[in-house]
Amino acid sequence: MGARLKVSYRVRGDASSIEARAEAIALEQSVETPLTVIRDPKILSEIVGRVLAISDLGDGWFDVLIELAAATVGGDAGQLVNMLFGNSSLHEDVRVHDVVLPDELLAAFKGPSLGVDGLRLRAKAEGRALTASALKPQGLSAAELAKLAHELALGGLDLVKDDHGLADQAYCPFADRVKACAAAIRAAAAVTGKHTIYAPSLSGSLADMEREIGIARDEGLAAVLIAPVVAGFSNFQALRRENPDFAFIAHPTLSGAAISPAVFAKLFRLIGADASIFPNYGGRFGYSPATCTAISRALLDPVAGLAPSLPTPAGGMTVQRTPEMLDFFGRESMLLIGGAILAAAHGDIARETEAFVQAVVEHRY
Amino acid sequence: MGARLKVSYRVRGDASSIEARAEAIALEQSVETPLTVIRDPKILSEIVGRVLAISDLGDGWFDVLIELAAATVGGDAGQLVNMLFGNSSLHEDVRVHDVVLPDELLAAFKGPSLGVDGLRLRAKAEGRALTASALKPQGLSAAELAKLAHELALGGLDLVKDDHGLADQAYCPFADRVKACAAAIRAAAAVTGKHTIYAPSLSGSLADMEREIGIARDEGLAAVLIAPVVAGFSNFQALRRENPDFAFIAHPTLSGAAISPAVFAKLFRLIGADASIFPNYGGRFGYSPATCTAISRALLDPVAGLAPSLPTPAGGMTVQRTPEMLDFFGRESMLLIGGAILAAAHGDIARETEAFVQAVVEHRY
Repeated sequence: MGARLKVSYRVRGDASSIEARAEAIALEQSVETPLTVIRDPKILSEIVGRVLAISDLGDGWFDVLIELAAATVGGDAGQLVNMLFGNSSLHEDVRVHDVVLPDELLAAFKGPSLGVDGLRLRAKAEGRALTASALKPQGLSAAELAKLAHELALGGLDLVKDDHGLADQAYCPFADRVKACAAAIRAAAAVTGKHTIYAPSLSGSLADMEREIGIARDEGLAAVLIAPVVAGFSNFQALRRENPDFAFIAHPTLSGAAISPAVFAKLFRLIGADASIFPNYGGRFGYSPATCTAISRALLDPVAGLAPSLPTPAGGMTVQRTPEMLDFFGRESMLLIGGAILAAAHGDIARETEAFVQAVVEHRY
Repeated sequence: MGARLKVSYRVRGDASSIEARAEAIALEQSVETPLTVIRDPKILSEIVGRVLAISDLGDGWFDVLIELAAATVGGDAGQLVNMLFGNSSLHEDVRVHDVVLPDELLAAFKGPSLGVDGLRLRAKAEGRALTASALKPQGLSAAELAKLAHELALGGLDLVKDDHGLADQAYCPFADRVKACAAAIRAAAAVTGKHTIYAPSLSGSLADMEREIGIARDEGLAAVLIAPVVAGFSNFQALRRENPDFAFIAHPTLSGAAISPAVFAKLFRLIGADASIFPNYGGRFGYSPATCTAISRALLDPVAGLAPSLPTPAGGMTVQRTPEMLDFFGRESMLLIGGAILAAAHGDIARETEAFVQAVVEHRY
């Protein structure tokens, strides 16, 4: 028998019908026909999804463990999410809780090219967590964003990224923004001696993103932010493959609540995110500390052949929380504080950034 | 003030906090910062999302109507879904219920190239609904799928599509499948005189899909199936633009339950789906007749500058239900019956297909 994925689905239902529901999901996510029409014994034994276990979790929820054939996925990340959840996503009461990929699939995907070590090396951040912030709000011109990038870089950040909403808008075209911000960050580096990584946000079709990454490259940049769910997983994969020297930061926008954040973390790592952003507990999103731990583990736990991806908690964080976040996430993380730095007292963004950077540098793990 | 989208979100919450929740969504989907950090009055007036109305729907659900600036979207479909739902999708208790796009955005997107009339013309199906079926199950070889395509085409269908799970798997590579199935359908047409449209399913990155569409074109085909959520909306848009002579069939896989099916229908039409597949009521999915009506209206209702997209109900339909489905959807529809035809008595798929086609042709609306 060929290699198989194991997928844990969470299904709301009742005990009397859960076996039928589980079988229906196994069919929907594999052959998408009634079993009766399958005449080929090899398809029955190799391709049809198989229910391995059903556990009653209480409160009307069940865990349904299903095995799917890796051969239906091949090496394409879009097809992987299609087979994982595709049509079953249309059911309100089915979610993807976890997935375990066989070695064959892990090998077909390459994972991060730089990973945690590579990013840390570029940031010269040995032995400590990394620091990051975001260029926003939406609506600023390229020159205004560049001014902000300059202040953030003066503060000594490891990484500045575009907000994921910055695209190629008429009031701030991608090329103008990237040129202005790259120059601003170079100017800051000339003052501080610290080289801040700038990661512009890519958007549009694969062809658009390839053009954008070319602009970034021309500006001497070597990092980008991409939202895999918006871009399409296969396109993230293609860009990763085409640009092995770039750092790829994955943004979770549009990832929804029906696939668990830890599964998204696994997928982002699988397709090559060197760092993966997620909403930290205690911020604007409802993630629990346990969820954040599960995400971190999905990004960092040893997996044969896959470099780790840097956990990047974000979403309404404050400089004051730095010690607590570092106690929680440890040095294998990148703290991303956006709005709270922009809200700095007296508009002194460089000073607020410095305080953030200092808190990270001085932290004892 | 620039053009604006109106988005209706459904939010679970309580009356005491719903105003704050609504404001938070308006910020999250526009500037993604606290209002206090925005110093530019033009951003405050033009770019920040604005809560227009909040209605208590009972049972702890509220409708929150928010206006977003069309300028943040530009003409890119990926950015449209990012601005519609992006980070807010991470909240379990927020959904997108409806969206109304301003004329400026409708004009930026082009909609279907063929639309309902163009598809009908190609199918020579004047005055009636269209008929379709799917090649499956996953796991069959190219030759086996071609045999099936031949039988379905002999039955006189208007359209045969690949199952959305068929990708570029080792056991059935795209090129082999498309060549074999296209030849089989040509052979059937030589017998029946009826030209069945064959729509292979594209997968992978935009570059992969461009290569695949080239293979389809070389085989004399002019239709494809694409899953916009897997492919990325911007890539669907790019392919549509590059291939104005092709019919594009959109598949809803992975579209989830957090954006309403009617909104997906609007988006599929906007980005150029000539036909849009959705789960019919009374099948394997839990959609109600009212939901199906909302989907159909989203695809068919007059919209300035946008051709209609053919409603294509599917998902566990049977030939026996044909009259009822046609009474419900009318002639502006394409009925898609997959598994039930494959389950034909005595394996006589051509005869079962003929019965389906005849039921559609003879129906009186």
